[in-house]
Amino acid sequence: MFNAPISRRKFLAGIASTTTSGYLSPLLTATPLSQGSREKPYSMDLSRSKHATLRTVPLDAVTINGGFWGERVTASRQAAIPEIYAQEVENGRIFNFQRLKGADHSTISSDLPSLRAGADSEIYKWLEAVGWSLTSANPALQAQARQITQDVIGAQESTGYVDTYWIGDRVAKRMLPETQISGHEVYCMGHLIQAGIAMYRTSGDRTLLDTGLRFIDAYILAGFGPEADKKPLISGHPGPEMALVELYRETSDPKYLNLAEYLLHGDSRLPIRPDQAVYNFAGVPFTGRTVMEGHAVRATYACGGAADYAIETGDPAYMKALDVLWQDMAERQMYVTGAVGARIKGEAFGGDYELNDQGSYCESCANIGVVLWAQRMLALTGEARFADVMERALYNGVNSGMALDGLSFNYRNPLLYIPGIDPKVRRPFWHTNCCPPNLAHVFASLQGFFYSTSKDGVHVHLYNDSEFNWKLEGGTPLRITQNTSYPWKGVVDLTFGPGASTEFTLFLRIPHWSATSTATVNGAAVELTKPGEYLAICRTWSAGDKVRLTFDMNPRLIVAKQQVEATRRRVAVQRGPLIYCMEAIDQPSALSLDQFALKIDADTAKSLSVRSHPELLGGTVTISAPGVLYSGKNADPGDSLYSTMASEAQAPQPVTLQLIP
Amino acid sequence: MFNAPISRRKFLAGIASTTTSGYLSPLLTATPLSQGSREKPYSMDLSRSKHATLRTVPLDAVTINGGFWGERVTASRQAAIPEIYAQEVENGRIFNFQRLKGADHSTISSDLPSLRAGADSEIYKWLEAVGWSLTSANPALQAQARQITQDVIGAQESTGYVDTYWIGDRVAKRMLPETQISGHEVYCMGHLIQAGIAMYRTSGDRTLLDTGLRFIDAYILAGFGPEADKKPLISGHPGPEMALVELYRETSDPKYLNLAEYLLHGDSRLPIRPDQAVYNFAGVPFTGRTVMEGHAVRATYACGGAADYAIETGDPAYMKALDVLWQDMAERQMYVTGAVGARIKGEAFGGDYELNDQGSYCESCANIGVVLWAQRMLALTGEARFADVMERALYNGVNSGMALDGLSFNYRNPLLYIPGIDPKVRRPFWHTNCCPPNLAHVFASLQGFFYSTSKDGVHVHLYNDSEFNWKLEGGTPLRITQNTSYPWKGVVDLTFGPGASTEFTLFLRIPHWSATSTATVNGAAVELTKPGEYLAICRTWSAGDKVRLTFDMNPRLIVAKQQVEATRRRVAVQRGPLIYCMEAIDQPSALSLDQFALKIDADTAKSLSVRSHPELLGGTVTISAPGVLYSGKNADPGDSLYSTMASEAQAPQPVTLQLIP
Repeated sequence: MFNAPISRRKFLAGIASTTTSGYLSPLLTATPLSQGSREKPYSMDLSRSKHATLRTVPLDAVTINGGFWGERVTASRQAAIPEIYAQEVENGRIFNFQRLKGADHSTISSDLPSLRAGADSEIYKWLEAVGWSLTSANPALQAQARQITQDVIGAQESTGYVDTYWIGDRVAKRMLPETQISGHEVYCMGHLIQAGIAMYRTSGDRTLLDTGLRFIDAYILAGFGPEADKKPLISGHPGPEMALVELYRETSDPKYLNLAEYLLHGDSRLPIRPDQAVYNFAGVPFTGRTVMEGHAVRATYACGGAADYAIETGDPAYMKALDVLWQDMAERQMYVTGAVGARIKGEAFGGDYELNDQGSYCESCANIGVVLWAQRMLALTGEARFADVMERALYNGVNSGMALDGLSFNYRNPLLYIPGIDPKVRRPFWHTNCCPPNLAHVFASLQGFFYSTSKDGVHVHLYNDSEFNWKLEGGTPLRITQNTSYPWKGVVDLTFGPGASTEFTLFLRIPHWSATSTATVNGAAVELTKPGEYLAICRTWSAGDKVRLTFDMNPRLIVAKQQVEATRRRVAVQRGPLIYCMEAIDQPSALSLDQFALKIDADTAKSLSVRSHPELLGGTVTISAPGVLYSGKNADPGDSLYSTMASEAQAPQPVTLQLIP
Repeated sequence: MFNAPISRRKFLAGIASTTTSGYLSPLLTATPLSQGSREKPYSMDLSRSKHATLRTVPLDAVTINGGFWGERVTASRQAAIPEIYAQEVENGRIFNFQRLKGADHSTISSDLPSLRAGADSEIYKWLEAVGWSLTSANPALQAQARQITQDVIGAQESTGYVDTYWIGDRVAKRMLPETQISGHEVYCMGHLIQAGIAMYRTSGDRTLLDTGLRFIDAYILAGFGPEADKKPLISGHPGPEMALVELYRETSDPKYLNLAEYLLHGDSRLPIRPDQAVYNFAGVPFTGRTVMEGHAVRATYACGGAADYAIETGDPAYMKALDVLWQDMAERQMYVTGAVGARIKGEAFGGDYELNDQGSYCESCANIGVVLWAQRMLALTGEARFADVMERALYNGVNSGMALDGLSFNYRNPLLYIPGIDPKVRRPFWHTNCCPPNLAHVFASLQGFFYSTSKDGVHVHLYNDSEFNWKLEGGTPLRITQNTSYPWKGVVDLTFGPGASTEFTLFLRIPHWSATSTATVNGAAVELTKPGEYLAICRTWSAGDKVRLTFDMNPRLIVAKQQVEATRRRVAVQRGPLIYCMEAIDQPSALSLDQFALKIDADTAKSLSVRSHPELLGGTVTISAPGVLYSGKNADPGDSLYSTMASEAQAPQPVTLQLIP
């Protein structure tokens, strides 16, 4: 499985040549890369992963054709990516690199407002988003990406180190133990590698990836690691673990996989305080963890990296820890939107069942962390529960992160937002602008979440108008067309395209929320599995075969476990995968949303009525619900702040409420 | 009105003698004090205040005889005062003074965990509480107070300065502009003066007051003030303004009144940032303020000081600002408990109608600030609306600050407290231990809030079993006995005791919450005034005359203005002056309070039923209310976090809820 790595001697020789020449050595660019990956743009390449139950398909194997996700992907590619670029330029993030070209990093001024620890990752995430969307992007965008790549190279030191923040008087603090914990150097390196992989796999251009390889090979691996003659390394912000495993997948060099495991394990030579081990979700052995805690992005990203490691190694200690942690998140700490991170303080997971609505943090990046982790758990196990959470988070907690027009973004995605009291949630740019390019990266690679293959056949996880054009693991080409108005309507038609007739199993995800579903093959009913499992249809499939799935699209009232204090006496309204919400503007004349309540009793679910609006936002479905208006009678500005409720005038009145997706 | 002050020349001569001798000069103790005050222990002496509509009565003119307040006052005197002393000893606050005796303040170590800016005020507040309760206190307590007084004197420098925090390496920072803003030196001095006045007025012992006079005369007034040859002074934490006006009332020396006004006005030579002017509620002219904002204790204490200034001067600019600010607080920023300070961040007032329940700060000291300000506004104007707020805050927001046993205290008084999620609210000692001794000081002087006199007669503000034994402003002695089970029952009997028959007006406060009240004089009905006003009964009153008041004790549902987002769809339950609450332990078997809701409709108010529990806590009244239990059906730990609500099993069930005061 493991290709022979470059020998350490040869590797060090390369380093020596870079440091003495003071310039980047071409030797280092000789790291062998997978040609297979380049030919097939996998966002996550599991084609050689030993312990993957399901294997991802390349991004160009699936085409999203409009519909719900088509509009989102288009908005992201056509509006968000250029807007993020403009904001990053305006906020000096690209200049941060440019100013370092030819400069002495140790004497250049570090007193520039655009400099922020970790900010380089914004550029790398943007490059990754550009990478995954290159095929449909414009030449101007490609030129911008090439220019930024040159800017990054220009800012890279001869040692391989590149970080625009740790310059000038901060050079002395580079990679010190305390800097590793909070300085984001290795975190940025991870995103540089991810961006480099995206660029390489989608264009064949390895320039950016080589920049990342110089950082990791010449600087990190040469100076840091578990060996006695190296300094200890800690993952101050998990994320590089996923990048390192992907780099291992790309290069087949186990040193990257080993480094990922070393980061996940922690190094006792670099003891961190217990509160840091919680907040950073690093520094102590991952396999000893049982609780999702601390900074929600760090925690979910660490789990994503650990799942990647398990996919490659099958390490049972990792498998067990991942299962326990997933249960802890999904059954005790996840919002109904698939979002995580209840606490504003520390942007952190709360305790068990701590799922407050107004104060919730639910950072877009944390919700993306849930999706990335779910995608990896799904690949590892093939279990539909991970796809269910992936769908829940994509349609709700992640989707809410980008405005419909793709021009503004949520950092927080709280479940309740009160204008004038809560801080603004949607902006074109955030001081820490991690979420916008991260959202763009997810939308750019969204088609990669739709299908998997396994030794038994092909698995369909997500539904949207789309074309699948790939092959079975045995090599037989396979084309499937999805025709559907999902998530607005519950019917999904899958049609097999031209190709060899062959026997295999088609695994169709029956979402956990669809209480009553039906399936037909060429018009004949198929016995259904339970919701929340894959319906497995094994037969010889031929061109023209048609499968029709019909899901239960009745609006449902969702209750949380009673242990969740914040949702007691409350319900969520869900239809299909979408959680619905109320906005004040849609309700009968009222000062504010808080004047309304859904009338909750045994008949409420039956009273919810659905209405299609084909004219709205490309076809939206709204829901009307029986509700109660708490009278505005006492809103006369002359009244006193507190008054006794008069029976008739101020008692609640019945009204009809409007809910939107 | 103003007595002749000590001449500046003579005053400075006194200072010179202290500084040259290096010890405290007896000359400075010659400041003439009012003999009248000493003979009559006024907590606030308005007997000579030109612009007081109502005049306070001395503390020994009213005796509280058991009942609701009797128990609280007893717990405070017998349990809280000794407990606070023990905690202050244990936490080194008294040692902070003792260690300075004979020490060189500029070289003694400032690195001691017990040292905290402002902590000296905890000791001064405790001394003030001891002072106001001396008559009923024990000799051991008196001895403790005398000993602490000696400790304070031992820590006072020859310059008059005394502050245990600003020592050692911090000496150089004393009274610098930035230290004035956050260092609490002048704040502590104010509390030293208040404690000294309390000691002097209740025991005739002027030792502690002279210590305060040395600080203010020799140190503050000699070096700071508006004059060009002095440094500017700012009230970093308002509070000293009330102390200075009271010192003016005690000494009749206008320099203290002028200093109070100077602090309220601010000094443009010491410009403070706009955010500091908000947070500190100081540094810019008080008369230009229109909004209650910033740190809630600072803001309410500043208003208390401004009201004191207005009581002495009648300054129309102050009267107007006070009216605007009171309206802003009482009609837009006050909780139904009379508490203020919605925000944890900055312990601050929120915006208009920002009255969240769970996150509310409502510091005990801020609620005390409301009471002290209300007491002064009542004296200034004679208007019942101030007494209504005073009662609301005393019975609820202040009363909740001390446990029934007097041994633990609230710093915050949030309206919703969720165990396990919210930080603990009740402790025997707080790192900043301002609230416990402040609560003890209020309970020690509580009888001073009950009655006032005016040129027309006598005013009754609060109701509790008690004896009033004082005189009309004309000099005629007057005794009134109150017999009542208020606030548990609505009947109050007032009986006139032996004394000369004389014509005057008895003003009886009809609480704003009593929709239907009755009053009789010797059994004959009297025509009632509106709720929220004083019922004025002018006649010749003689010994044995009886007045019976009967208030409306039906439980009421209180609604807030619809502008208050946090209380929409919500009601408070109030009976008499008491706001009721629900505790989980009193409800039908349930995991938590949040599973219950009051059923709010046109009939709810009529369905509230009241039950007396003479055996509980000396006679408590509880309320039963129709409510709804949101089923615990989904509480099975094996269930998933989110599930679809099944109509029958999980629909809300009717239950009866129990509410307690």
